Amino acid sequence: MRRNQGPGPSGFSRRDFLMRLGQAAGSGAVYRAMGAMGLLAFPTAWGGPPQLPADSGRGRKVVIIGAGIGGLSAAYELGKAGYDCTLLEAGERAGGRNRTLRSGDVVRETDSEQVCGFDAEPHLYFNAGPARLPYHHEAILAYVKAFDIALEPFINDNRGSYFHSSKAFGGKPIRGETIQADSRGHIAELLAKATQTSALDSRLTADDAELLRQMLRAWGDLDADLLYKGSARGGHLGDEILQAGQPRPPIDLSELLRSEFWQFQMEFAEGWEQHPTMMQPVGGMDRIVKGFESRLGGVIVRKAPVTRIVDGDRKVRVRYRHNGAEHEITADFCINCAPAYLVKDIRNNFSRAYRDALAVVHPGKLFKIAFQGRRRFWEEDDRIYGGISWTDQPIMQLWYPAHGFHKPKGILLGSYTWDPEQGEAWGRLRPEQRLAAAIAQGEKLHPGYGELVEKGISIAWGKVPYQMGCSPEFTPEDRARHFPTLQAPNQRHYLVGDQMSFVSGWQEGAVRSAHAAVEHIHHRVASGD
Amino acid sequence: MRRNQGPGPSGFSRRDFLMRLGQAAGSGAVYRAMGAMGLLAFPTAWGGPPQLPADSGRGRKVVIIGAGIGGLSAAYELGKAGYDCTLLEAGERAGGRNRTLRSGDVVRETDSEQVCGFDAEPHLYFNAGPARLPYHHEAILAYVKAFDIALEPFINDNRGSYFHSSKAFGGKPIRGETIQADSRGHIAELLAKATQTSALDSRLTADDAELLRQMLRAWGDLDADLLYKGSARGGHLGDEILQAGQPRPPIDLSELLRSEFWQFQMEFAEGWEQHPTMMQPVGGMDRIVKGFESRLGGVIVRKAPVTRIVDGDRKVRVRYRHNGAEHEITADFCINCAPAYLVKDIRNNFSRAYRDALAVVHPGKLFKIAFQGRRRFWEEDDRIYGGISWTDQPIMQLWYPAHGFHKPKGILLGSYTWDPEQGEAWGRLRPEQRLAAAIAQGEKLHPGYGELVEKGISIAWGKVPYQMGCSPEFTPEDRARHFPTLQAPNQRHYLVGDQMSFVSGWQEGAVRSAHAAVEHIHHRVASGD
Repeated sequence: MRRNQGPGPSGFSRRDFLMRLGQAAGSGAVYRAMGAMGLLAFPTAWGGPPQLPADSGRGRKVVIIGAGIGGLSAAYELGKAGYDCTLLEAGERAGGRNRTLRSGDVVRETDSEQVCGFDAEPHLYFNAGPARLPYHHEAILAYVKAFDIALEPFINDNRGSYFHSSKAFGGKPIRGETIQADSRGHIAELLAKATQTSALDSRLTADDAELLRQMLRAWGDLDADLLYKGSARGGHLGDEILQAGQPRPPIDLSELLRSEFWQFQMEFAEGWEQHPTMMQPVGGMDRIVKGFESRLGGVIVRKAPVTRIVDGDRKVRVRYRHNGAEHEITADFCINCAPAYLVKDIRNNFSRAYRDALAVVHPGKLFKIAFQGRRRFWEEDDRIYGGISWTDQPIMQLWYPAHGFHKPKGILLGSYTWDPEQGEAWGRLRPEQRLAAAIAQGEKLHPGYGELVEKGISIAWGKVPYQMGCSPEFTPEDRARHFPTLQAPNQRHYLVGDQMSFVSGWQEGAVRSAHAAVEHIHHRVASGD
Repeated sequence: MRRNQGPGPSGFSRRDFLMRLGQAAGSGAVYRAMGAMGLLAFPTAWGGPPQLPADSGRGRKVVIIGAGIGGLSAAYELGKAGYDCTLLEAGERAGGRNRTLRSGDVVRETDSEQVCGFDAEPHLYFNAGPARLPYHHEAILAYVKAFDIALEPFINDNRGSYFHSSKAFGGKPIRGETIQADSRGHIAELLAKATQTSALDSRLTADDAELLRQMLRAWGDLDADLLYKGSARGGHLGDEILQAGQPRPPIDLSELLRSEFWQFQMEFAEGWEQHPTMMQPVGGMDRIVKGFESRLGGVIVRKAPVTRIVDGDRKVRVRYRHNGAEHEITADFCINCAPAYLVKDIRNNFSRAYRDALAVVHPGKLFKIAFQGRRRFWEEDDRIYGGISWTDQPIMQLWYPAHGFHKPKGILLGSYTWDPEQGEAWGRLRPEQRLAAAIAQGEKLHPGYGELVEKGISIAWGKVPYQMGCSPEFTPEDRARHFPTLQAPNQRHYLVGDQMSFVSGWQEGAVRSAHAAVEHIHHRVASGD
């Protein structure tokens, strides 16, 4: 989709309009208008990080709010071009939701504090925020490469991990390989039979119907009569190495339907952002944060919450608290990466439309728990090497590490939920209550779980100061009505972050949004604005 | 499946028979009979490596032929129990088909010699034989763990890699994500529509039919009308980060059928041994060989081809050449891991049935080529991180490394075929002709390939001395008739290796077969045989 092509609402073409505007008000006005129209900063494909000429920002001041991935990206790219940046971070640390917890780290929520008790080993970490990188998230991967951060596979769909439904299979966990093979088998058999009746005649040529039957036979592992009688793809009964393996009898279709795995677990790894194989930085996602920090020198000011933003035609003033005093920076531009639902409560002079738009963004409520395995029982006992087990209990997922195979210990993700109600319910529990609940539910997947794990730690992103949520979302109606307003600057103030993308919760959205703002500022500066 | 249960052919139970045999001929005869009947050495599930009492083999001599994974496993387990082992390897190196090629290594075939020209870097290697480990190959994984060999994910199905058909899509490579999404979509739509006619009434209850339609909608990403109109699973047109992504229009079902990917490429990663995510030892598969070698001390005698085997009731004599002279070892047992199709040509006194059985095993003809990428163009240009691209050209597959992401160079597998005719055809070419052919075909997947790769090296296993093939196979008839004969010893001679398993070509078969022989020998020794 290319946006905003063709004549504009006023009847003459956008190009005409912009030419006239430039004649009347100068090129700075043109670039602001182009931003508002979505023409400039939002290309149809990523063409690499901003290529700003060295020193092109010399003498220009930019204040950046929020040292998450968006703010870090913006500060890094602007700094390379000679801009004078100050990056104000309200909290104690850079990275935002890109956070990796290790031995001794402290998780502060509004009403609790937890200390991470993992053993101090490089592979014993917990990516409390983003944990996986898809191949097509090119902008964040470009930083991984540029910063020389070692990258390794992340296992997102291990067919050997478990599906657990409280509604089917007697509540026993079943390996994904079996669920997937039997679903394909039943679907293929039903369709193969249907092609033999007249029902599909009108939809397929006879040749295609015959090819389709052959396809379904291979695809579903049907027998010569196009019947599904179980498949070795789902694993064998007994030994299959020194004896001929016997496939398991298939799970009944009714049972598979009742399990409700088809609601999304079975399809999860079909998603474009959720391929079976993805990537992770070796040693933790915050290697990316460290990469930025080591290149940003003294640009980052920590514990500096912003209290007021006065946007203007020529300058923008940002007030913040730091070391017990109020400070103010007057800058040429402000890039604001704080969540819109927190920005709206900072004193400001934004336009009514901009304020209305800020007000519709609502926080996601992701929740995660991690445990240290006393031993890697998932490998030793269950032969699960990485991947995700799914359950219809509130913990929803149990992740096994894709690294450190066969080491004495490892970190398990003991719950990861993104349903807002579930997230709030987990958040209302005290940390020790969360751990107890997650352990009780984990027992359904790994009997004896309570004895096998230790040192649990949890994070309810909705209760983390200066975050108070994550993966900001718009309703479809609000997206249509208010998102374009926020994509354009309010005079010299740019809202940035994954919230300003269509991939909320992904670092790629933050980086791309930051790049768009950086390029927009560059064009304004280059045109004398 | 449990084999050999119930009464035997002679009308009384196997247990009765074995008791009477023990009374008549001693327990040694019982164990030999149990082996022949498949009762002893072939358990229904692997229960861990042999647990032989220390010193239980003291004073017993075992000669082992072939230092592949089977022979190494046998020597290691017997050695731990105090057996005096000699491991005769006909060639220069241990490992058999477990072979990793690095800078300076030499590949010798019957009529050629190639030197591996890769740069000398730890990640620049080529697993010329086995290259991946499934989670359920427990016996080989147990050695990886016991030898403290670092293990990492192997990417077997990257949905971002390519499918190329010369019969469809104008010969252009298409990403797997698109092929998979569109196939699911079409299948789901056709079946969903079929459930709305009367054709499937007799096979589904109304409730199940309704649930099935819901399932198909999720499963195939259908719209509310149960139509497939393309899916974001298959990737987007244009940018999808700062703009709402637009799914590609679906590939026509006729085109997918004509592409013939459904013959096996689309199903490949559904296989129980071919999950999307598998494992590999860090640094090359031959880390396993090194693990054995470092623990076997002087047991291995290299360049020692066997010339004669005289099996007997109490001893077995093995003659071999070494350093220009003939030698003979008299041993209590012989474990022979050479391929049956080579063993049959060694002078022997085996039973007629045993010789007939050896004669039916035929060699596989696997063929592989590897290239060094001058740069990692598959990551830089194609955003492919690990996995396999498929083509209907003779190279069949192109593998991308799952390790060393973003490093300057990497090793690509430029062809891997297992069709016997293809293997022989590749083998008939001179090495430089193979490289030229593989490059020409690779151009269809990666235009400019010839300029992007260097230092090609190939291996036609059918022409490697002392291998002359790989992945030994039986026809189904021969498997039924002759395999049981070879599973039992010919007096004191045991045929071992992946050839003696149902997973030919996999290291697990070699290890499990070796373990079975070791345990069988142990029981004979323990019973005074």
